[in-house]
Amino acid sequence: MRILFVGDVFGSAGRRIVREHIAHVIAERGVDLVIINAENAAGGFGCTPAIAEELFDLGAHVLTTGNHVWDKRELIEYMQSVPEDSHERPRRVIRPANYVSGTPGHGVYEGTLPNGQAYAVINLQGRVFMASNDDPFRKMDALLETIQAKVIFVDFHAEATSEKVALGWYLDGRVTAVVGTHTHVPTADNRVLPGGTAYQTDVGMSGPYESVIGVEKELVLQRFLTGMPGKFEAAKGDPRMAALLIECDGVTGRAYTTQRLLLGE
Amino acid sequence: MRILFVGDVFGSAGRRIVREHIAHVIAERGVDLVIINAENAAGGFGCTPAIAEELFDLGAHVLTTGNHVWDKRELIEYMQSVPEDSHERPRRVIRPANYVSGTPGHGVYEGTLPNGQAYAVINLQGRVFMASNDDPFRKMDALLETIQAKVIFVDFHAEATSEKVALGWYLDGRVTAVVGTHTHVPTADNRVLPGGTAYQTDVGMSGPYESVIGVEKELVLQRFLTGMPGKFEAAKGDPRMAALLIECDGVTGRAYTTQRLLLGE
Amino acid sequence: MRILFVGDVFGSAGRRIVREHIAHVIAERGVDLVIINAENAAGGFGCTPAIAEELFDLGAHVLTTGNHVWDKRELIEYMQSVPEDSHERPRRVIRPANYVSGTPGHGVYEGTLPNGQAYAVINLQGRVFMASNDDPFRKMDALLETIQAKVIFVDFHAEATSEKVALGWYLDGRVTAVVGTHTHVPTADNRVLPGGTAYQTDVGMSGPYESVIGVEKELVLQRFLTGMPGKFEAAKGDPRMAALLIECDGVTGRAYTTQRLLLGE
Amino acid sequence: MRILFVGDVFGSAGRRIVREHIAHVIAERGVDLVIINAENAAGGFGCTPAIAEELFDLGAHVLTTGNHVWDKRELIEYMQSVPEDSHERPRRVIRPANYVSGTPGHGVYEGTLPNGQAYAVINLQGRVFMASNDDPFRKMDALLETIQAKVIFVDFHAEATSEKVALGWYLDGRVTAVVGTHTHVPTADNRVLPGGTAYQTDVGMSGPYESVIGVEKELVLQRFLTGMPGKFEAAKGDPRMAALLIECDGVTGRAYTTQRLLLGE
Ligand SMILES: [Fe+2]
Ligand SMILES: [Fe+2]
Ligand SMILES: [Fe+2]
Ligand SMILES: [Fe+2]
Ligand SMILES: [Fe+2]
Ligand SMILES: [Fe+2]
Ligand SMILES: [Fe+2]
Ligand SMILES: [Fe+2]
Repeated sequence: MRILFVGDVFGSAGRRIVREHIAHVIAERGVDLVIINAENAAGGFGCTPAIAEELFDLGAHVLTTGNHVWDKRELIEYMQSVPEDSHERPRRVIRPANYVSGTPGHGVYEGTLPNGQAYAVINLQGRVFMASNDDPFRKMDALLETIQAKVIFVDFHAEATSEKVALGWYLDGRVTAVVGTHTHVPTADNRVLPGGTAYQTDVGMSGPYESVIGVEKELVLQRFLTGMPGKFEAAKGDPRMAALLIECDGVTGRAYTTQRLLLGE
Repeated sequence: MRILFVGDVFGSAGRRIVREHIAHVIAERGVDLVIINAENAAGGFGCTPAIAEELFDLGAHVLTTGNHVWDKRELIEYMQSVPEDSHERPRRVIRPANYVSGTPGHGVYEGTLPNGQAYAVINLQGRVFMASNDDPFRKMDALLETIQAKVIFVDFHAEATSEKVALGWYLDGRVTAVVGTHTHVPTADNRVLPGGTAYQTDVGMSGPYESVIGVEKELVLQRFLTGMPGKFEAAKGDPRMAALLIECDGVTGRAYTTQRLLLGE
Repeated sequence: MRILFVGDVFGSAGRRIVREHIAHVIAERGVDLVIINAENAAGGFGCTPAIAEELFDLGAHVLTTGNHVWDKRELIEYMQSVPEDSHERPRRVIRPANYVSGTPGHGVYEGTLPNGQAYAVINLQGRVFMASNDDPFRKMDALLETIQAKVIFVDFHAEATSEKVALGWYLDGRVTAVVGTHTHVPTADNRVLPGGTAYQTDVGMSGPYESVIGVEKELVLQRFLTGMPGKFEAAKGDPRMAALLIECDGVTGRAYTTQRLLLGE
Repeated sequence: MRILFVGDVFGSAGRRIVREHIAHVIAERGVDLVIINAENAAGGFGCTPAIAEELFDLGAHVLTTGNHVWDKRELIEYMQSVPEDSHERPRRVIRPANYVSGTPGHGVYEGTLPNGQAYAVINLQGRVFMASNDDPFRKMDALLETIQAKVIFVDFHAEATSEKVALGWYLDGRVTAVVGTHTHVPTADNRVLPGGTAYQTDVGMSGPYESVIGVEKELVLQRFLTGMPGKFEAAKGDPRMAALLIECDGVTGRAYTTQRLLLGE
């Protein structure tokens, strides 16, 4: 079974480059399950229901997010428009599972592919250099007790390499994949850990690489140089789709191989 | 002209794997200038004079460091054992240039290769999610007014991808290379920016990859799981040398190509 | 009923000034319940069993701590030397209650005074600008469901004024007192909130005020000026005991008045 | 000579309570020099030219600010509407002096009172738990070499008590007063240090104390409880003017006494 995970789609340039590539990747590589991190899909800040629909139309089964999930408030209504046990699209947009209990939305989606293959997708957020949230390690222990699927994909939205690498080892042999998002730079450490868990510290951004992590570079440089506030706008130049392709066993949930993709114009 | 930059050497496993590979890489790739980040070479915490000598013996021209530079106090005496205008080994161990004026050691080394090629190596430290230091952007402006060499290599020891990418763009066309260190995970974004500056967000650690960024993974997991203090020890498993090979024009200082290396046992 | 809360005892100077004053304050003010924050009592870093005994000998009923609780490892054994339902001294040393489940020690102590008055003392730690821990707000909700006593004292060990003030309002009318520790500077905002909860953002350190929050000022200045590591030693000059005296109703647990004490030589 | 320093004026409630009290304090206490921190005067976020004029009308000689200085962009134009050597009102609104060189506005104002008394006011910002700026310690060294006045007041806008206390000791005997702002809670440690410098870690907010540091408490609690974004609005309840009154020698610039004021309705 093959899983394609597409990193933080950033603004219109990111959406455009994903639209350009994703269909042929899915077809040529025989992808079964498509997961896209959409936290920056709307101009770099959050995701709207319309953009979520657009990404589902491109073949996504599940959309993950991260710290930008609430930037567009209408996404909250969208996520809450269906009940927890629904399998409709709004239910398949998830936010980090270790947000405090009672937060809108859900942190896990369990589904079944047309071929009958069960799977689960979990979104988690780190705590080092980020906002305080519930312990992601303990949260995973709790979630794994309730999840039925053998194929389990974890999008760990975190800043510090230490926390991401540590969670990878912690879950090795217990989930199919732990793949990082949030730093917007793809790392070259994708591999299958000894226990059979696919791992990559960060899959990287699907967006404009002539930028500072998605934003117009002159605007970010002004911020660094002056310390003064200023509007951040999504850049357009050098768009690339960053993704990780994972091959795994649908019965055991163990990963065989990983392959990094970085597809430009 | 070819430059080899070896990422944060971590503990004895890191030193051993560098020793195993560096000579044949230098020979086979025709490397002219060898720079090694040594901030974690002594058991993960700093670098001793003896270990610095060991790395120079392996062919290093310059050793860079980072936030761990003062972990072994004897390195201060070593760095101060020769005058500022010396070209001896202790002068070729540098610390971040944007540490406050008056800090022991130097942040820049300018030298000449046997073939007469002049070069400069600069070490800088970031400020996002790190200790307060002088502005690395302004510091670079000041340094570039005084440096004669056309070939200028910058080791930017920083945590946040935004700050590293921003400095890359800021220096594009003004230096030969901006290569990041400190996160201990190699990034897959090495390239030559439009102005001719080689760039990589992080070259990655040269050390044990069966670890959490160099440290025994069980010890780091205990820290994350309990929040309690505990000794950190360098891991040994799965050592790899992470490096970036840069080809550049010795006359103009502009880079042509970059190539990522990750060499295991 | 009267409660005396003594702020972070710092080093030998702090212990000495507390020894000098606490007996006469207890006697003259008719104090019923004495709580001392001991996280810095051993040279500024943690607390030993011997020092804990010394503070109990001075009349403390309960010792609270904070982020320095594990600095002296022998305190762990001490805390674990008696069962959870014990009322012996080791059980009356508590650590922040919102540390992850499974952490050594306990975060709450419920006891009874000789006159039959039941009370509870809770220690909590903040998350803003501090290590990640469980949510202190939610933790309080859970604890208050299990605590029988009406008189409930909370030592909130936290950095940011916003988090401390917010917890005060959150618990107003639900506990007897929310008093902050950790910043080592007494605040002038002690008062009884409208719901009857005594509040002070920080009670301040009981230690040497000719210092930088307890440490020899020259050593801290060197750290700020150079960024270089160096040993921190407890200062001795100008010792003062910082405390808050709270008068409350033993039946309802509501506070009537607060009074700040800052007693020097 | 007497200096009155009024802490962070917060929103309309803060402006109103300052208007209610400042004239009689100036008159009754014989205040010569009035300095007001105005960084939150406009609804909690920055200061407008109209509000600056309002505060000058109340008797302020100089307005200091802090990290919120750029929240209202029109203040930049106001500050830049007069030349550096002007003594008009726009020149007497200052921002932290250790912002990077080239930042709009100025960090120091040197003036003369009607009675011929020269004075200087310096605004500085801390770096611990705050944005990266130039070193406030070194910046003070540089400024003190150029300032002619003997009476020098420093508003140190900073978060961490350690950094504030350390700067107090660093400047003891070199300036008339080091008074902290930013945490919005008055500290009870006002005193004259041995060298003759008046010191207080934080003068506290002049604003609504039925709030979380100025903001409606329910809104801040929601933020802490849910982690979700939401509009912050200035509170109104329980307004108080927090200030420090300093008596000093106009010739030597040394302070004699300090007195804390916290004046409600
Ligand atoms: Fe993102
Ligand atoms: Fe993110
Ligand atoms: Fe390192
Ligand atoms: Fe480092
Ligand atoms: Fe403390
Ligand atoms: Fe503390
Ligand atoms: Fe403020
Ligand atoms: Fe502020």
